[in-house]
Amino acid sequence: MTYCVAMCLSSGLIFASDSRTNAGVDHIATFRKLTVFEEEGDRILVLQSAGNLATTQSIVNLLQRRCKDAERINLLNAPNMYEAARLVGETAREVIHRDSDAQYGGSTTDFSCSLLLGGQIMGEDTRLFYIYPQGNFIEATADTPYFQIGESKYGKPIIDRVLNYHTPLEQAMQCALISIDSTLRSNLSVGLPLDVMIYPRNSFSSSQQYRITEDHPYFTMIRKNWGEGITSMFSQLPPLEL
Amino acid sequence: MTYCVAMCLSSGLIFASDSRTNAGVDHIATFRKLTVFEEEGDRILVLQSAGNLATTQSIVNLLQRRCKDAERINLLNAPNMYEAARLVGETAREVIHRDSDAQYGGSTTDFSCSLLLGGQIMGEDTRLFYIYPQGNFIEATADTPYFQIGESKYGKPIIDRVLNYHTPLEQAMQCALISIDSTLRSNLSVGLPLDVMIYPRNSFSSSQQYRITEDHPYFTMIRKNWGEGITSMFSQLPPLEL
Repeated sequence: MTYCVAMCLSSGLIFASDSRTNAGVDHIATFRKLTVFEEEGDRILVLQSAGNLATTQSIVNLLQRRCKDAERINLLNAPNMYEAARLVGETAREVIHRDSDAQYGGSTTDFSCSLLLGGQIMGEDTRLFYIYPQGNFIEATADTPYFQIGESKYGKPIIDRVLNYHTPLEQAMQCALISIDSTLRSNLSVGLPLDVMIYPRNSFSSSQQYRITEDHPYFTMIRKNWGEGITSMFSQLPPLEL
Repeated sequence: MTYCVAMCLSSGLIFASDSRTNAGVDHIATFRKLTVFEEEGDRILVLQSAGNLATTQSIVNLLQRRCKDAERINLLNAPNMYEAARLVGETAREVIHRDSDAQYGGSTTDFSCSLLLGGQIMGEDTRLFYIYPQGNFIEATADTPYFQIGESKYGKPIIDRVLNYHTPLEQAMQCALISIDSTLRSNLSVGLPLDVMIYPRNSFSSSQQYRITEDHPYFTMIRKNWGEGITSMFSQLPPLEL
């Protein structure tokens, strides 16, 4: 499995992904699930993926390769984020159909995947899309400013409690990190390292990308702080009265 | 959906269930999912259920009716909790097979359910079982002292952070309530009122049963306290350093 979260807030975008993939419990590996498509000063697009790894790698490969063909619409020349999301959805359909239709008789492997595409193209505001395995997609709004894919339930309560559209980027990233920490503790199929990125609105820069490993000092500290804080808050609850 | 949690701890048992059932989003109703089987001074058995409501109601009905037939092994004369769990599993199989096998052509309704059975029978310690739709079951241990059924992921991180086998019953119930609150906030298919029960080891009493409605003063207070505590803890996190 995987856990990715992306947020589209008033001051910019937040992306955070784990890097674990597993087929069963004994085939565990580390793969980056966050890919940046960038044209200096014109656009930054960030793609996160969860689901069948062969599918998601194929999608990323095809999207990257097609960026070199200026004759066709691609992620580096799409006129707006809507068209970029449509293109990603179309590529997802193409790969999923190709592999599903070619299955040998009776096989029912699930080739599907879910994708998040966020970013900004010059002339538009920041936008974030959730792209379904069917290739269609929805867009985040001020009412629902975040999307999750993969093993999303463990880390949802903390986001629902603290995040809103006007949360500053720094706090939103803290929220994403705690959301991932909660998931890491409860589910083996989500694992370090993490790939995270902060995109300040209108910056057209991908400079705030970070990889967070097991011994990352800040992540280690807030995991510890948060865990201890929860325990201490819990011990201070008023005595049970039912 | 549903969310039920049960804990088997050194000082006794904790049970907490929501009461929402839904078939799609427009057929929502309230049904109790916690049933007590009791023989004063000899045994207390508590059954919690999640899954197809027709199935779980049938199982409870059959188990209750059969308690009146002293010729057969039933929940009120089973010699130990293992036999009681086996009996519940067998009854689950019976109902699920009956309804699944009788489906009209092509229909693939899911008649399955999951069950938790906890309690104490004179001569034994407290025990807790997780019964699968297949009728087989596993038992909680000091290493893994709790089980959840239904919509369990949202409420798992808080339990993993604060609960262990030696947590006192009062705190364990607080943990269960917060776990349910986290679930209620993130998932519409889990809803109030809650049915909860505290069973102190060797008490052979079911007197500590409570129904918690929307305006329950203690639940309202800890929901508020917890929510505010999380927000305040969050605002005090050390500044982001990536």
